[in-house]
Amino acid sequence: LNALITLRWQDRQLILLDQTRLPNHIEYLTLTTIEQVRDAIRTMVVRGAPAIGVAAGYGMVLVANAIADDNYPGFIQELESAGADLALARPTAVNLAWAINRMLGRARAQVGTPVALIRQLLEQEAIAIHQEDITINRAIGENLLSLLQPGNTILTHCNAGALATSAYGTALSVLYLAQERGISLQAYADETRPRLQGARLTAFELHQAGIDVTLISDNMAAVVMAQGKIDAVIVGCDRIAANGDTANKIGTYSVSILARHFGIPLYIAAPTPTIDTNCPSGSCIPIEERDGEEITRINGELIAPLGIKTYNPSFDVTPAENITAIVTERGIIYPPFQDNIQRLMATELMATERL
Amino acid sequence: LNALITLRWQDRQLILLDQTRLPNHIEYLTLTTIEQVRDAIRTMVVRGAPAIGVAAGYGMVLVANAIADDNYPGFIQELESAGADLALARPTAVNLAWAINRMLGRARAQVGTPVALIRQLLEQEAIAIHQEDITINRAIGENLLSLLQPGNTILTHCNAGALATSAYGTALSVLYLAQERGISLQAYADETRPRLQGARLTAFELHQAGIDVTLISDNMAAVVMAQGKIDAVIVGCDRIAANGDTANKIGTYSVSILARHFGIPLYIAAPTPTIDTNCPSGSCIPIEERDGEEITRINGELIAPLGIKTYNPSFDVTPAENITAIVTERGIIYPPFQDNIQRLMATELMATERL
Repeated sequence: LNALITLRWQDRQLILLDQTRLPNHIEYLTLTTIEQVRDAIRTMVVRGAPAIGVAAGYGMVLVANAIADDNYPGFIQELESAGADLALARPTAVNLAWAINRMLGRARAQVGTPVALIRQLLEQEAIAIHQEDITINRAIGENLLSLLQPGNTILTHCNAGALATSAYGTALSVLYLAQERGISLQAYADETRPRLQGARLTAFELHQAGIDVTLISDNMAAVVMAQGKIDAVIVGCDRIAANGDTANKIGTYSVSILARHFGIPLYIAAPTPTIDTNCPSGSCIPIEERDGEEITRINGELIAPLGIKTYNPSFDVTPAENITAIVTERGIIYPPFQDNIQRLMATELMATERL
Repeated sequence: LNALITLRWQDRQLILLDQTRLPNHIEYLTLTTIEQVRDAIRTMVVRGAPAIGVAAGYGMVLVANAIADDNYPGFIQELESAGADLALARPTAVNLAWAINRMLGRARAQVGTPVALIRQLLEQEAIAIHQEDITINRAIGENLLSLLQPGNTILTHCNAGALATSAYGTALSVLYLAQERGISLQAYADETRPRLQGARLTAFELHQAGIDVTLISDNMAAVVMAQGKIDAVIVGCDRIAANGDTANKIGTYSVSILARHFGIPLYIAAPTPTIDTNCPSGSCIPIEERDGEEITRINGELIAPLGIKTYNPSFDVTPAENITAIVTERGIIYPPFQDNIQRLMATELMATERL
């Protein structure tokens, strides 16, 4: 895989590629505390729902190793409190809460185990989350590949690539798998304002890997679709409600309406931990609003009048009716999503219980 | 009217507000040759279909005053040659060719008149184009106002404001007229990548005039529409085909599909010279493609990987079926556009012939 490593666990420290500096500065940061992990997630040094989940897992290891209390009740209390704080870093992606809960669940199940051993188990769990993410992404890529033809061109929005995950990416995994197998696929990348993840990250990682990518402004998607250039839209996802509504990077809703208008399939690429069955529909997914300066400044420089009013939702909800299929590591979910998501999750639960 | 003056004719020189430097630098350039006018149009120092037309009129005066030949045949030949060159500055807006042709028509009708007098008549003609533009924009504003209710919020794309015209603007004229009359209207402005005319110009001129404006990224239009915040979309236009298809700033096509999806009316605000009856449909409107660096650099700074492939059409065509009405100074044109445009243009021709 010709891609930069997004995050690495080394000497019990978390090494993160600083994604706010890409594509023109390649810098790694070494994180040693959960507070640093929380800040890195909040400031988008690390971003992308799966990568946030993996980083959160390691963040929990960092705090577990830092807690002075060697008695189980005090240890677990401090761990839970740190996890609750970390979960606030970004509200929309469910993977953050999912990874923290998985780590807490591992610790909670160890009543009676010496805390020193629990620390080791937590490190193993975080590494497992990390490794599973890579396996999951390859499986998503396989499933996406079954939906495309050689020579197809996809449109993608934001970055659901290697940089948003441990490797391969969710939406972009299909491009890397196709490349490995000598199958030709091309991509158009929406630049994805305001943070420009399409320009800074997707165009960068695909270009670096030698995959054919064309960068456009978000508002050009309708034109390339009308010109017949796009065979499928594939995007990542931050949370999937029980009815199939999905929260994605701001602008995905717009792309979904355009795709539907032009009869182009829209595939949501997401690992099953992105499914939040506690959330009946998109209306209950919290949508993060970020600072208006993301719109009014680029690289610190003002591109709008000082003091202008802005509205800056970081995500939007694509209604299930605009989605052709949700592509997970466990299979492709087609409508009716409510039933088919329930069926998939039940199967997963049974599989987990058998372990 | 609380807005900056876009262009001024003074001492037989054209004074232009340099719109590439807004909103943070207010600088005027003094142009004394047609070549400078051509370059100012090409580099978007002056932009917006009506303002380009007015600038082109004065450009023709500058060259008429510079032609050394005082014999009519030589004079008219040089004038036509200069006009043909100026017309190439930007291909999509028909107003450029329209203004040049109007100036040439005035000169061609003066066979036998001393060239010194023709120069004066040309100056009068350019001033007339300039003055008419202001009158036209107020009339468009009146017609738009009849389509809105007090308290309404409009969404606009790019800049079809005072800065795109001699004053008032086309799409934004309704906001200035409403303000003059104490009627409350609000606006959302798409930032309009890649050149950011929405952020740099629309947000700037409305904010400066004290009109309530909220700046969003282009890809947020679907969300604000879905939230019920938008009562109407109003945009300017660069060319209207005989069937009602319109060429507008890139991204308008996308907005038109979204407006239709949400059942929000889309009004095209345009003076009748924007109608090109020689053009049967949108497919024959030339679409300017501009340098990819408009996408990859902002204020000279790289925001995408060096050497990335881009696609940068500067305009797109909104099909007539997505348009609720075309609002001109001579009235509101509703579908069927083919018939109703023809009827309006015939009336105009009759009115012109009566003069």
